[in-house]
Amino acid sequence: MPDMTDRQAFSGLTVLDFSQGVAGPHATTLLALHGADVIKIEPLEGDWGRGLGKIEGDHCAHSVAFNRGKRSLALDLKAPDAIAAVNKIAAKAAVVVESFRPGVITRLGFGYEAIKKINPSVIYCSVSGFGQTGPYSKRPTVDGLIQAFSGMMVMNRLPDGTPWRQGMIAVDVTTGLYTFQALSTAILRQFRFGEGCHIDSSLMRAAAAWQGAKLMEWVHTEGNPQPLYMPAGSYKTSNGYIMLSAMRPHHFRKMFELIGRPDVAADPDLQTHENRIKNAPKIVKALNETMPARTTEEWIALLQPNEVFCERVSNYEDYLAHPHVKETGAVDWIKQDGFASMPIANIAGLPPAREDPARHHAPHVGEHSRAILGELGYSAAEIDAMVAKKAIVVPSLPARAAE
Amino acid sequence: MPDMTDRQAFSGLTVLDFSQGVAGPHATTLLALHGADVIKIEPLEGDWGRGLGKIEGDHCAHSVAFNRGKRSLALDLKAPDAIAAVNKIAAKAAVVVESFRPGVITRLGFGYEAIKKINPSVIYCSVSGFGQTGPYSKRPTVDGLIQAFSGMMVMNRLPDGTPWRQGMIAVDVTTGLYTFQALSTAILRQFRFGEGCHIDSSLMRAAAAWQGAKLMEWVHTEGNPQPLYMPAGSYKTSNGYIMLSAMRPHHFRKMFELIGRPDVAADPDLQTHENRIKNAPKIVKALNETMPARTTEEWIALLQPNEVFCERVSNYEDYLAHPHVKETGAVDWIKQDGFASMPIANIAGLPPAREDPARHHAPHVGEHSRAILGELGYSAAEIDAMVAKKAIVVPSLPARAAE
Repeated sequence: MPDMTDRQAFSGLTVLDFSQGVAGPHATTLLALHGADVIKIEPLEGDWGRGLGKIEGDHCAHSVAFNRGKRSLALDLKAPDAIAAVNKIAAKAAVVVESFRPGVITRLGFGYEAIKKINPSVIYCSVSGFGQTGPYSKRPTVDGLIQAFSGMMVMNRLPDGTPWRQGMIAVDVTTGLYTFQALSTAILRQFRFGEGCHIDSSLMRAAAAWQGAKLMEWVHTEGNPQPLYMPAGSYKTSNGYIMLSAMRPHHFRKMFELIGRPDVAADPDLQTHENRIKNAPKIVKALNETMPARTTEEWIALLQPNEVFCERVSNYEDYLAHPHVKETGAVDWIKQDGFASMPIANIAGLPPAREDPARHHAPHVGEHSRAILGELGYSAAEIDAMVAKKAIVVPSLPARAAE
Repeated sequence: MPDMTDRQAFSGLTVLDFSQGVAGPHATTLLALHGADVIKIEPLEGDWGRGLGKIEGDHCAHSVAFNRGKRSLALDLKAPDAIAAVNKIAAKAAVVVESFRPGVITRLGFGYEAIKKINPSVIYCSVSGFGQTGPYSKRPTVDGLIQAFSGMMVMNRLPDGTPWRQGMIAVDVTTGLYTFQALSTAILRQFRFGEGCHIDSSLMRAAAAWQGAKLMEWVHTEGNPQPLYMPAGSYKTSNGYIMLSAMRPHHFRKMFELIGRPDVAADPDLQTHENRIKNAPKIVKALNETMPARTTEEWIALLQPNEVFCERVSNYEDYLAHPHVKETGAVDWIKQDGFASMPIANIAGLPPAREDPARHHAPHVGEHSRAILGELGYSAAEIDAMVAKKAIVVPSLPARAAE
């Protein structure tokens, strides 16, 4: 139930969320963490995003991350009883989000025009791969394909030019952020001006917007963007990798003097930004020769106090254990049903997870079906009848069903 | 000047923006594109973010991308006249954003506590590398170092395990999105409840939040996350690369039948998700053998109609020229002073750039100094005196100065 007393941005707002997977759910979990009552409509078997990677019950790590704070109503969108219940929610929702392939939601009867008739100021957001219009609009796609399509894999390419896909669903996650950007501003317009709208969000647009400066740079440099500075990369040490970055001109000289390579610091071929870019292989060669001689920690102890920009290359375990991360409360550890304690990366502008751990619960399939239908005025007998007809799913555990 | 008639989310709001570089400016350019009057406070020599890569006058591609829609007031923050002018703006601003190293803005006299005294409901946002507190808070950093620190380079690592930095300032850009998330919700709280706040946004937190599901997955799999499905990667064709993705189980079989490798489709070692992950090298080997036999376009013509997920690996030139991108208006081309026409990746929820090209102008250093000071009540003679004292900069072109 929405809590109107907590003074969060979206307190008191209902969100009808048909979205599945990652992009849409990421946007709506941010709405939920900022106080909205997000009702997650799932098919009887659950959101397909619950099966990404290692599974624990009806969740995986991704479905926990992108469904925190929501309530789940699992139903068959073709069953008349379920359709009637969804329409009751649609009539009062501030926001409706869906991520079916373009055209599908209209056939199901919950398209923008249909909802607008019963809810004139609704904010309706469609999230898709290629957008609602154009020749590719109905083309099936996934994160990796948009990494390929958008130029992201070429941007992230290896030294030999091989295009490289990121080891995470970067476009999906980023689409969640751009979709949230569209939703939060639309909600403010709804508050200020009483207006709704139809938002056409897509993986394609989000990937391009995220790379917007790179697109401009590509045009401006006629396809030959230069590194912003040199060196800026990771180098092997005796026990790992160190990232070195000589952003300001004086950093270059200082770095090479400190690591015992005054010959490079003074090399006449490397005294200007342009020359360092042009003769980058000389710099890379010198660092590859020199950096393996000491540990990462020894180099950092030498370079950092002299304001040469450097950092240990960490994995997630290092990050989670880092004293600065711990001391600043950047990560909280929250219990999720069926999982060991899970790390929550706290987000700027949101209360830290430790202050409201219950809000970070990601629902089981149909966990709140009974509660939500009860709020809509359905009696327990009516709900039981819907379960018997397989129009809805409620959790099998009596303790939950009694909620 | 703010336009109160356009009914954008932030119409009528003034933003006092001290931020430089990319992360803060990215957030405030989104505020400007959604209607806010963002006054960019720059040092006399301009934001250092104007010098990232190839330079054109007082801009580079990055500074254009992340300063669209703002007005520039260039001044010396230590000159008494400039300080007085900034305080006038601070008193009426809905939002103040700064990205100095923690502690600096307080010494300059514009810290949260100082602004709050003259503007009790102000939203004050600090953007930094490691946040405002903790042992690393004053450590200098840049995008690449946070890619290293946050685990991002390990997530993005090469097949041999080498950590790999993305070819763009991914953390800076993403921090802009998380900062915008914090600002837009804080503005809604300011509207609804009359409350201000101090937001502590950082590159470190944004990088971790963006990888939040990966952090959970790392813990859940004890540091050994598996690919979400197999295959999902790019393969050489006779004229480029193709990205292949067998998300659903039946895609795997269909893909290998269609490319003429029924032996792989039927391989008893590859019939379950678990076995395909375990025996991934067999799949990769088969694709490396087979895919170079035809062009990318031939493969796509064969696979796509059968709903096997595949996509050409494009660069930015391909993206910008793509018929679907053109037909959907995903990119508009806008003239920027000093540049050829520049591509604007249109963002979901915002009017397309072609409908309001003037809003996509990124200001020159001090371009609006005269206009802004005039609105604050300064006479032309007073402004001239400030210029003579080097307290402010106005553009040297008479046409602009007359604005």
